[in-house]
Amino acid sequence: MEYYSRHISNLIEQLSRLPGIGAKSAQRLAFHIMNMPKEQVNLLAGAMTQARQKVRYCKNCWTLTDEELCPICKNARRNQNQIMVVENTRDLAAYEKTGKYEGVYHVLHGAISPMLGIGPDEIRLKELMHRLSEQEAEEVIIATNSSLEGETTAMYISKLVKPTGIKVTRIASGVPVGGDLEYIDEVTLLRALEGRVEL
Amino acid sequence: MEYYSRHISNLIEQLSRLPGIGAKSAQRLAFHIMNMPKEQVNLLAGAMTQARQKVRYCKNCWTLTDEELCPICKNARRNQNQIMVVENTRDLAAYEKTGKYEGVYHVLHGAISPMLGIGPDEIRLKELMHRLSEQEAEEVIIATNSSLEGETTAMYISKLVKPTGIKVTRIASGVPVGGDLEYIDEVTLLRALEGRVEL
Repeated sequence: MEYYSRHISNLIEQLSRLPGIGAKSAQRLAFHIMNMPKEQVNLLAGAMTQARQKVRYCKNCWTLTDEELCPICKNARRNQNQIMVVENTRDLAAYEKTGKYEGVYHVLHGAISPMLGIGPDEIRLKELMHRLSEQEAEEVIIATNSSLEGETTAMYISKLVKPTGIKVTRIASGVPVGGDLEYIDEVTLLRALEGRVEL
Repeated sequence: MEYYSRHISNLIEQLSRLPGIGAKSAQRLAFHIMNMPKEQVNLLAGAMTQARQKVRYCKNCWTLTDEELCPICKNARRNQNQIMVVENTRDLAAYEKTGKYEGVYHVLHGAISPMLGIGPDEIRLKELMHRLSEQEAEEVIIATNSSLEGETTAMYISKLVKPTGIKVTRIASGVPVGGDLEYIDEVTLLRALEGRVEL
């Protein structure tokens, strides 16, 4: 790309390596960055390097955090005996946004996927089992995604945890709130039927 | 966002200020960045600050470049007397990609838009007129967008340049190559009709 200066080409190339950012978006972002105030660019670049350098995993629940223990694991008002297992920190954030869940989490950082060659050892399952052997726990709520990988992972965890005598539950699967039955796939409709509750 | 660590929240906030990146995309990008190798993050952050610091405008055509004169203005094999006026550096790049244009450019950095309060003084028009008074020029090709603002700017430039005796042309407007008439708007169809050429 000789028509751009070396620095612009380099920026476009670096940006286009990010997920979901193609050549055109990278170009648009690069020109936006060139027109941003210098301080703003420094803040953005600094936020990246800082976040990447400072962030680490909570040694208890493996979410991304600044300190040895994340704010949720340190919080005495959260029920430390109710552990929700999620695939990643974004899923944890989704449940935190509801503001209603009072237990704690365990972040797997992935799901078992034979297709992608991700086995039980590639995700933080050993850490979950170690945690359950060290602390008292009343319930393990499996909140992996409702995908093939998520379901496989849920089944696997359930088989591992049940023998310990701890209650294992799975979040409900069914028609989303506000969903129109007409547009919902058959598998979900059948799940919703199977999971029906008495009123 | 207490459920994310301070550094992650900060990164998400900085990213979501970029154009076309909403809260969800910013979150996805932030987590991608956290999982990138440290060197890669430094390259990305460095590319931003470097590009913002080092890049300047070509003193002749006002495109973004590293040096006083851009490679196109310095190139003796380009026809320095044929000047294509474009709205921004991305438009210049679009014509450079064709590999067929042999003249040079003038980058306006915008278009006249009474709606947005952008007048002729807000874009690099004075610089164009100054350039035309200093150098010999055979033709000014107006390649602003085919939008209301682009057309307004084209008319304005045409009125300014014509009295100098320099030939002023406008790139053709019509049905795009591969375009299906059925799906093309009426204004474009009429433009294509008006601009018909004899075969």
